[in-house]
Amino acid sequence: MNQSLQKQYPDLDPGSVAEQYIEEIRKEIQTLSARIRVIGFIASDDLPSLTYARATKQKFEQVGIEYELKSLKRLELEDEILRANGDRDIHGIFIYFPIFRNEQDIYLRNLVDYKKDIEAGSLYWTKKLYANDRVAVSGETDKKAVIPCTPLAILKMLTAAGVYSENEKKPVDGKIVTIFNRSEVIGRPLAVMMSNDGAKVYSFDVNGPLLFENAKPAEIEISREEALMDSDIVITGVPDKYFRKVSASEIKPGTVCINFSTYPNFEDDIETHTDIYIPRVGPMTVAMCMRNTLRLFRNFHC
Amino acid sequence: MNQSLQKQYPDLDPGSVAEQYIEEIRKEIQTLSARIRVIGFIASDDLPSLTYARATKQKFEQVGIEYELKSLKRLELEDEILRANGDRDIHGIFIYFPIFRNEQDIYLRNLVDYKKDIEAGSLYWTKKLYANDRVAVSGETDKKAVIPCTPLAILKMLTAAGVYSENEKKPVDGKIVTIFNRSEVIGRPLAVMMSNDGAKVYSFDVNGPLLFENAKPAEIEISREEALMDSDIVITGVPDKYFRKVSASEIKPGTVCINFSTYPNFEDDIETHTDIYIPRVGPMTVAMCMRNTLRLFRNFHC
Repeated sequence: MNQSLQKQYPDLDPGSVAEQYIEEIRKEIQTLSARIRVIGFIASDDLPSLTYARATKQKFEQVGIEYELKSLKRLELEDEILRANGDRDIHGIFIYFPIFRNEQDIYLRNLVDYKKDIEAGSLYWTKKLYANDRVAVSGETDKKAVIPCTPLAILKMLTAAGVYSENEKKPVDGKIVTIFNRSEVIGRPLAVMMSNDGAKVYSFDVNGPLLFENAKPAEIEISREEALMDSDIVITGVPDKYFRKVSASEIKPGTVCINFSTYPNFEDDIETHTDIYIPRVGPMTVAMCMRNTLRLFRNFHC
Repeated sequence: MNQSLQKQYPDLDPGSVAEQYIEEIRKEIQTLSARIRVIGFIASDDLPSLTYARATKQKFEQVGIEYELKSLKRLELEDEILRANGDRDIHGIFIYFPIFRNEQDIYLRNLVDYKKDIEAGSLYWTKKLYANDRVAVSGETDKKAVIPCTPLAILKMLTAAGVYSENEKKPVDGKIVTIFNRSEVIGRPLAVMMSNDGAKVYSFDVNGPLLFENAKPAEIEISREEALMDSDIVITGVPDKYFRKVSASEIKPGTVCINFSTYPNFEDDIETHTDIYIPRVGPMTVAMCMRNTLRLFRNFHC
């Protein structure tokens, strides 16, 4: 985010928005009688990954969550997840993906005990999300389900940007949204949730578009150009440097633009066409993960 | 398989081997007091897929299993799986993949109730397989777990070829195996099972090799050429027409060669170097799926 924009919209820096949630979480954790313990598994030696891992550890510790960062070989991870699942003194598990960069990563994600799945990426939670089931354990309405961290982070950033009101029944009623990404942990849950909240969502992946309305997908023939020009909100998450970045000329003036990929998916000129451009959500994702940790602890471990 | 080979090894035609299992299954089904009902979901219009779907339906019906083949749109599949999961009159679910050709297919595979998962591709069964847990329900030792159909079909073909004895404790002790494919439904389970049975397994995927011994993987640096020349058994399952096919000059004379991809992964000249070349296992996969259907019915539905 450039300087002028940051001045104009101080609330749209994901770091600043995250701080508000982190402060709430910190206060709530102080009221707990027991200590929350999380284990984070990293199977990579590369510096950016290690830096990110150490930063998350620090963030968790700042709110009073004990966070063990464990470096291991990728082939040790499966056994370690099972061990952590069975360890009563561990309340949350975090995995720094990608590990194998294939189908096995999905297997590992699903292997995490749902009661400790602070990223909420395992099948138990995904199934609940797609079924619009907001309760963690059926019949126990005081136990709320957890939601995958990045989609939740995006919704909270949209709330901070004023385009999303959490108090309305259909907070994005009539809004048109384009999302580039239909993964099972981010793009599809996000499309389902936003369409459930009233939006008409064009969801693109490499195989083409789908239209989500009222949490249900439908086949549609629409070009990228048509979808973008239609949209009030554009959300990108394509981890591919060859993705053709969204440029200013492709969007309506004032379109809300959010990128959650580690690659920039918008051209630099995008800010000439909109005041609300959020180039990353990382800090919010970590905050939402901490929020999930607290929720799972209350639901299952105390 | 060519004519001369078929004469020499009548038992190595997957169709003929399958017939023996099918006959056993048919007899066992006749002893049941209730009727087994399976639903197969196909979301494709293309002729080869439809032909295959109709052929499986026919095979199931020949052994006395009721088989409803349901054509639907891909976007209807999720709800239909959930409906079939909840339908007490349906005992088995079969899905003709690929559907979305992305991560969502794994989600759908895992969505199938494990008690009805006749392909044994969902997480419940995969976890059991990797843990070498042979019992379907812990504590109930008379209820045997089901195993993914294609790896099972391959093991049965190796048994028919005489290189695998089911009665020994380590039936492939000391054997060296190369497998091209490390998917969660075929390649990895197969590597785990064969290494559990005593083999040393080189497992290749696009990211390189792993070595499986005693059901555990290890990092290894070995070239395709070295692995192949070392191997007693070579198993291929690469659904990519650009895969460099394994040729006669790459294997030891007499190597057992099996391909389970729909693409030919061996050069035609392979038969000059080995008498045991099994170019497809399809009919055996269907037979093993029927075997699983019967087993799940006995375990959970009667």
